[in-house]
Amino acid sequence: MALDLLITHVHLATMVDGYGEIPDGAVGVKDGRIAWLGKQADAPRGARGARVEHDGGGCWLTPGLIDCHTHIVHAGNRSGEFEARLNGATYEDIARAGGGIMSTVRATRDASEDELLRQSLPRVASLLAEGVTTIEIKSGYGLSTEAEAKMLRVARRVGEELPVRVATTFLGAHALPPEFAGRADDYIDEICERMLPALAAQGLADAVDAFCERIGFSHAQTERVFNAAKKLGLPVKLHAEQLSDQDGAALVARFGGLSADHLEHLTQGGIDAMATAGTVAVLLPGAYYFLRDTTPPPVAALRAAGVKMAVATDCNPGTSPMTSILLAMNMACTLWRLTPQEALAGCTINAAHALGLQDEIGTLEVGKYADFALWQIGRPAELSYGIGFNPCSAVLRGGELNRRKLLDSDQHAIV
Amino acid sequence: MALDLLITHVHLATMVDGYGEIPDGAVGVKDGRIAWLGKQADAPRGARGARVEHDGGGCWLTPGLIDCHTHIVHAGNRSGEFEARLNGATYEDIARAGGGIMSTVRATRDASEDELLRQSLPRVASLLAEGVTTIEIKSGYGLSTEAEAKMLRVARRVGEELPVRVATTFLGAHALPPEFAGRADDYIDEICERMLPALAAQGLADAVDAFCERIGFSHAQTERVFNAAKKLGLPVKLHAEQLSDQDGAALVARFGGLSADHLEHLTQGGIDAMATAGTVAVLLPGAYYFLRDTTPPPVAALRAAGVKMAVATDCNPGTSPMTSILLAMNMACTLWRLTPQEALAGCTINAAHALGLQDEIGTLEVGKYADFALWQIGRPAELSYGIGFNPCSAVLRGGELNRRKLLDSDQHAIV
Ligand SMILES: [Zn+2]
Ligand SMILES: [Zn+2]
Repeated sequence: MALDLLITHVHLATMVDGYGEIPDGAVGVKDGRIAWLGKQADAPRGARGARVEHDGGGCWLTPGLIDCHTHIVHAGNRSGEFEARLNGATYEDIARAGGGIMSTVRATRDASEDELLRQSLPRVASLLAEGVTTIEIKSGYGLSTEAEAKMLRVARRVGEELPVRVATTFLGAHALPPEFAGRADDYIDEICERMLPALAAQGLADAVDAFCERIGFSHAQTERVFNAAKKLGLPVKLHAEQLSDQDGAALVARFGGLSADHLEHLTQGGIDAMATAGTVAVLLPGAYYFLRDTTPPPVAALRAAGVKMAVATDCNPGTSPMTSILLAMNMACTLWRLTPQEALAGCTINAAHALGLQDEIGTLEVGKYADFALWQIGRPAELSYGIGFNPCSAVLRGGELNRRKLLDSDQHAIV
Repeated sequence: MALDLLITHVHLATMVDGYGEIPDGAVGVKDGRIAWLGKQADAPRGARGARVEHDGGGCWLTPGLIDCHTHIVHAGNRSGEFEARLNGATYEDIARAGGGIMSTVRATRDASEDELLRQSLPRVASLLAEGVTTIEIKSGYGLSTEAEAKMLRVARRVGEELPVRVATTFLGAHALPPEFAGRADDYIDEICERMLPALAAQGLADAVDAFCERIGFSHAQTERVFNAAKKLGLPVKLHAEQLSDQDGAALVARFGGLSADHLEHLTQGGIDAMATAGTVAVLLPGAYYFLRDTTPPPVAALRAAGVKMAVATDCNPGTSPMTSILLAMNMACTLWRLTPQEALAGCTINAAHALGLQDEIGTLEVGKYADFALWQIGRPAELSYGIGFNPCSAVLRGGELNRRKLLDSDQHAIV
């Protein structure tokens, strides 16, 4: 076996069956995929003749992290609104002043494709510096065929500009655009009959999502979107049960959906449906924290039912301006009592399941992509324990080291 | 005026009277201090002939941030305990297994001075990457004259190894060392009669702190420590009212103390005493978050009384393993409803007051040290708004750019 790369002197957390720890391990790469892994002492004859051999210096090596729920492509931010609210402005004041999600829609529509990319890259780079090698990116601030297409093209370009795999999701049913005020069903028609088919034809959407909520779209409207996705052969997922129980988890499960996300108000019926369908529960503690929510998702019941739990940033300007996956892990543990092992599985193997990519990424197993994060830590639990500390010392995607300094400060200001 | 450095094309947040914004500003440096600042168009004749001129590229420029409450020098971490607790271990289980603060005391006592420094530097570097130029570091895991001296020497060395000003605090009255089990008053004798005089004689302590709490030291014991500090001319501060009301804030105010810290259980009497004495309220949201506390400090009452509020990380392995000052700012806003302006003042001018350094640092004013952080942001509120995003593009301490890549991953692993 002529390896392209052998990384020695690392402790492996394979994430196969718990942490799947292999202390004093090594991992071999061939053609961008894992060709061998195990105890360093057991490295096969010839492995030491790899084209390149790297000493991992006693680091822990995990699968590259996966952020499986983001709205990271958007223009502008809502720091003004954040500040106004803390200075006493009401939600009505802010809406009257043109704030809220529609301000992000306006900014995103107004931005050129290049500008939208330029604004999005530093946020993605922040994740990548923490060992992320795969990211899901949703549309949903365009709300017209062209603006949604622009967002999804930018999402694809993120994956060309930076060393990250990108899974795109069409989220036309995120909010009602002003053009359709009072005509939500007409907008759903537009999505099902024009937007979704057009975007699918361009290969821009890997999956379809919706916001099923009193302040979003109804159960029946969501079902129509899902039927349109099904006709096009696209997998579905759902923003479900965040603010109220809309029976959304059961709906997405009935469509064999990839994931139901948020789930603070999920009930046992939804949990059972997800368990049966194999739909992943994507937990988003950033939004819970930022909105000062007090109803946690039913973690113990999900665990008991054997529902896979993923953890993601939900990076978005309105309810979770979070660009740290390690912090999402810490919040999942601190606020919702996930174990550090569950949190790490939530950003590796279970996040891979949430994207339907579990055969390609998410664990260290022979045949999967050689997407690795190396960490200067004494044990995997340190990844969830720290608050705002990044112990990532190297990242590889497909066996290639991320050599590019990701939007390093060197390019800015006076350095 | 022959400046050493002129930074142009920046927006200034001087933090004098609110944000003290000067859009399209410039700042001139001479001998490590601010020699001029104002509108760029008003730059004095000759300023353009500065030895070095830097274009700030439209960044915001703030005073270098100040983390005025940390226990950042310590050995080991408590991720094992974190994980055990999330897997169902009780506090008794952990204590029986040798966990808790005494595990940090053991690790810190056992570490050589060099090893203690080596373990502490990455945590400090994490803060410095976010624009921090001054940090307070407490002892309190040695609990013997020699081990406390070692911690404080390491704290001083942090300031030599990295471009950061360090203010040291002796916190011998942090916990009861095993040698004094059941003899707390004897340990206070030891502190007052031997430890504190010895450390003061070596110039290792800039201030004196104590943990006044049911599980720490009593009001009366704290008062004895403060009297010993007073005799040596050292300013005092206090871990006060975190878990219960011990009337600690009034005590530290009576001694004209620099700050009372935590304050979740502070009552109006304490607030009034602090306001009269000018004692700063140091708010530590990291510990509140990590401990899942539900009693916020009385922010509105502190504000109404005109008590200066600072915000700090409380970086420590047991209750706030936090190495991000920006995240502390976000938590202060999100969890406790500080305004972004208050949060930034809390990490600049009010933090300077908490260290007694308000004449040297904390604002952009002529004569103060040229400690600057430059930020790629559109408005200062973005510093508090983001969760895990670091927009810092450059840091200067005393007019010198931090050119050293702070413990960059380059030195590690396989890069
Ligand atoms: Zn979302
Ligand atoms: Zn403390």
